[in-house]
Amino acid sequence: MSKIKSPSDVKNIEKKDLQPLCEEIRQKIITTVASNGGHLASNLGAVELTVALHRVFSSPKDAILFDVGHQCYAHKLLTSRFDRFDTIRKENGLSGFMRPEESEHDPFVTGHSSNSISAAYGIYKAKKLLGEDGTAVAVIGDGAMTGGMAYEGLNNVGTDMAKFIVVLNDNKMSISKNVGALALSLTKLRNRPRYHRFKFAFSHLLVKIPLIGKTLNKIVYKLKESFKNAIYKSDFFSVLGYNYLGPVDGHNIEGMESIFRVALSYNRPSLVHIVTTKGKGYSFAETSPNNYHGVSPFRVEAGAENSGKLNFSAVAGNTLYDLAEKDKRICAITAAMTEGTGLDKFSKKFTSRFFDVGIAEAHAVCFGAGLAAKGMKPYFAVYSSFLQRGFDQIIHDMAIGGFNLRLLVDRAGIVGEDGESHQGLFDVSFLTSVPNMTVFSPSSYKELEYRINYTAENDGLFAIRYPRGCQKNCGDTDFTEDFTLLKGENKKAVVIYGRLFSEALIAREQVDFNIVKLNKIYPLSDKLIETLKGFEEIYVFEEAMKSGGIGEHLSALLLEKGFSGKFKINAVNNEFVPQGSTDSVLKKLNLDSTAILNEVKNG
Amino acid sequence: MSKIKSPSDVKNIEKKDLQPLCEEIRQKIITTVASNGGHLASNLGAVELTVALHRVFSSPKDAILFDVGHQCYAHKLLTSRFDRFDTIRKENGLSGFMRPEESEHDPFVTGHSSNSISAAYGIYKAKKLLGEDGTAVAVIGDGAMTGGMAYEGLNNVGTDMAKFIVVLNDNKMSISKNVGALALSLTKLRNRPRYHRFKFAFSHLLVKIPLIGKTLNKIVYKLKESFKNAIYKSDFFSVLGYNYLGPVDGHNIEGMESIFRVALSYNRPSLVHIVTTKGKGYSFAETSPNNYHGVSPFRVEAGAENSGKLNFSAVAGNTLYDLAEKDKRICAITAAMTEGTGLDKFSKKFTSRFFDVGIAEAHAVCFGAGLAAKGMKPYFAVYSSFLQRGFDQIIHDMAIGGFNLRLLVDRAGIVGEDGESHQGLFDVSFLTSVPNMTVFSPSSYKELEYRINYTAENDGLFAIRYPRGCQKNCGDTDFTEDFTLLKGENKKAVVIYGRLFSEALIAREQVDFNIVKLNKIYPLSDKLIETLKGFEEIYVFEEAMKSGGIGEHLSALLLEKGFSGKFKINAVNNEFVPQGSTDSVLKKLNLDSTAILNEVKNG
Repeated sequence: MSKIKSPSDVKNIEKKDLQPLCEEIRQKIITTVASNGGHLASNLGAVELTVALHRVFSSPKDAILFDVGHQCYAHKLLTSRFDRFDTIRKENGLSGFMRPEESEHDPFVTGHSSNSISAAYGIYKAKKLLGEDGTAVAVIGDGAMTGGMAYEGLNNVGTDMAKFIVVLNDNKMSISKNVGALALSLTKLRNRPRYHRFKFAFSHLLVKIPLIGKTLNKIVYKLKESFKNAIYKSDFFSVLGYNYLGPVDGHNIEGMESIFRVALSYNRPSLVHIVTTKGKGYSFAETSPNNYHGVSPFRVEAGAENSGKLNFSAVAGNTLYDLAEKDKRICAITAAMTEGTGLDKFSKKFTSRFFDVGIAEAHAVCFGAGLAAKGMKPYFAVYSSFLQRGFDQIIHDMAIGGFNLRLLVDRAGIVGEDGESHQGLFDVSFLTSVPNMTVFSPSSYKELEYRINYTAENDGLFAIRYPRGCQKNCGDTDFTEDFTLLKGENKKAVVIYGRLFSEALIAREQVDFNIVKLNKIYPLSDKLIETLKGFEEIYVFEEAMKSGGIGEHLSALLLEKGFSGKFKINAVNNEFVPQGSTDSVLKKLNLDSTAILNEVKNG
Repeated sequence: MSKIKSPSDVKNIEKKDLQPLCEEIRQKIITTVASNGGHLASNLGAVELTVALHRVFSSPKDAILFDVGHQCYAHKLLTSRFDRFDTIRKENGLSGFMRPEESEHDPFVTGHSSNSISAAYGIYKAKKLLGEDGTAVAVIGDGAMTGGMAYEGLNNVGTDMAKFIVVLNDNKMSISKNVGALALSLTKLRNRPRYHRFKFAFSHLLVKIPLIGKTLNKIVYKLKESFKNAIYKSDFFSVLGYNYLGPVDGHNIEGMESIFRVALSYNRPSLVHIVTTKGKGYSFAETSPNNYHGVSPFRVEAGAENSGKLNFSAVAGNTLYDLAEKDKRICAITAAMTEGTGLDKFSKKFTSRFFDVGIAEAHAVCFGAGLAAKGMKPYFAVYSSFLQRGFDQIIHDMAIGGFNLRLLVDRAGIVGEDGESHQGLFDVSFLTSVPNMTVFSPSSYKELEYRINYTAENDGLFAIRYPRGCQKNCGDTDFTEDFTLLKGENKKAVVIYGRLFSEALIAREQVDFNIVKLNKIYPLSDKLIETLKGFEEIYVFEEAMKSGGIGEHLSALLLEKGFSGKFKINAVNNEFVPQGSTDSVLKKLNLDSTAILNEVKNG
């Protein structure tokens, strides 16, 4: 590893030194993730693949894009980021995803699934228009391939006579076990009997035929075609205009190098199907890759353990489970996040009412609205930042028709180490812009439970948003009304909701003020405005974008009703929020108890 | 037609009367669209298909969903809406799309493309969970099949042993000429030599074999399978888990009935491939289906004529054309709306820098961000309501990376006869919630031209939004600064932007007041707030949602800066806006000159 100063050095490594290099990379990933937390199993699976890519392609001349970024750690280690690798996911450290500002070898932003083909194709077309050399490679997992944007990209590229390469890293699962018809078909491809006998021999032969003269080129082309049809064949990708090449063992560097060179010999898009083992090289992770997808810090010898601690996701899942026992119309939908959203128990018990639709949030919302249209009570549990993918469907398929798919918006607010792409900061703005939507933001487990039950018993378009992680102390504050007033002696009020409520309680131990805790955060009632008009100073704190947030909605109503006191919104203002521990980030954003205290004292 | 009181009556019509019925439907569609405007060519193509569907399936027991709704006119005529059909797209009249509140035969909302499979599958699963009979049929065009959500739906359904039917209405184009690899593959299927010989004979035979006894069932199944593999075969849909059946002549009712019955005999999802002629039966439309996709009122004998009148879309297209001649980095992207967004001229001249990516807004944004990442200057021209599909990509792929894909947001504001699903009322809210985004809203052609040039010469994340149709009189008001103050004698100010500015000018002919015309509508400058603080009364008018709109942003800044005058926002408040002429709708919403006048006089 010490020899690799830039990715071009990977090309010069002797064959015998390749496997030791991979071991070194693997160990570095394991020890770093054990210390920092992060995405483990998928990264361990992609080590040989990454080495093979850098031996054939030349970054940054060739743009290599790792979809999502759950497989880009080896790439970071090979592209001059070894020394800083122990800062990954830490405040001011390396990102856990691809970030162009971090390295010229990260050609685009990743974090949300299924964007690699679209982005890489844009980069590719720009290169050609600018007369630059080189190609673009999109490395995409079988899970990400269930996302609609991946297909939109595939379909768009397919008609272009472009030397454009998609590498399908098939580890037989996305985050949860992979779902959908395409996954099934990939399994068939992997299990084809003749595949193992032929796979390398032929591709080897092919790249050794000298590519001189037109006639010979034609013969080689025809050979390849017949070869492809005889042994390598995936109808799906062929129909979409790709040379399908594979499947190939994703832990055999030489084999992958050969097949990448075959792909490069075409002037048409190629899809190279690589089969890898998620968690490869760390026995705990190989045995249960699901549990090692994203992990908190752990001891390498002991393996990661489920902390067993309750969190908002588990409470949501458990509540839905209890409801489903009583009400046969309760359904649960996830977009490939069964464990993350706390739905594992539900998924095992209520198999016919549980739907994992793949990484397909747009479809999830519309499908759920379809269930609701026929009188079922579906809940879609989804991370706030991924729900952005279903925004149009919330407007068009849910709200216009009035089909009540209940939204459980998990990871709302600051998420911590995943950084910019995963912060749940937009849902308040976009959900409250949708007509007839009612939005709740519970502060505690009990309140979350109450609200899920409430939405099951009532009709309307409902979204319930709650943060990542565990509740903080909320005392025994009532949460059954639209808002709760904790009366103080003065005329100062802090308007607050969700996780931040507990910060206000802490601040209030130091100095007296009124707290207006919003339970239903939208729409805002006349009674609330009347109550707020009674104060002289109002400070809104929200873990959301200022633009389109509750503070702005309030300010309009207050100003229209003639309020003329002091007013200030504390929220995220026109910026993306980088990674760091949630507590530290909230502090930086002036959304913690100290900030509240300062505002009330000096504001 | 007079015999058809409900869709079940379609089943009893004698074979000899079917073609006359179709002629009657066609004439009704032609004369109505000639009078009301609407979607013509696609509806004319789907007449026989609709009749065949209602002869085999039983709505509402079987849910039939027409994707987008550009092909649902015949369905409306056959499901008790003949008498009201002349009100289609009129204020308080029938919708041009499927609307559940209009009829029990419209099981879901349509309007935005590619949602039919997802929604129909939700309905199907709900039916099964509720123990109801019947199936669900999604009728989807080849254009809509390029949308990612269609694929997400297909992939999700494919593993289910469900009697679920997708009818692919392949008219060889979407709105513009169809694009992408899948379209190419459909063309190959259509042109397969053996197809014509076998197509009906065998399917006929199949449905006549009595379905009694398990053994016979098995034999029939095997027969079907081998038949399918020998003659009917589409690898794409087969991989996704569907029985592919087709292609079949979409103007031969008997043929379609047979094949629908074959599909119904499976307990697996089927995809029936129907080939139709867009514009069928009206020679003008058959010859140039593109021009007859969506039309304004016209004379039946003369055909629809292009009014030749300039509009905002054409100005945007022309400006981009001029820019592209000077700057080789200018690119244009459309999501299947070349004509609608005024890009036809550009597309013909700058072929290598023009990208029609299919009905794939998510991909369009990410692909464009990829082009921008490499230093190109791409513009994505897209209707406001369809851009909702790219919201996550605007945040994740454009803004986080700072990749400046310029957004030309067409049809921003009220769109008129297309109604709820097409109103461009959300873009102000969602675009202004994205960090670092600058949003412009020109009032006139000259201003639009100026702003497009401005965004080409400057760096940043830019969106320019403009309305459907033609400019109104804006005088010679300057628009080069962030805002323009038209000074009045009193302390009343109307804050306004975009199309409504001309309404304010009209009102100002009656009574004196200040107009603050926003040219850059976001972010809002300190200078603007200082200026506004000088007024005693502020009335904001905007053709957008109140929640998250400019009025709310302003109110927060004003309140924080201590403004205590009168303030009121006039915008669309927490409701969907139904169809009607744009002028009439603006009047109803209190956004016209009369409303402005009243507000300033009495507010």
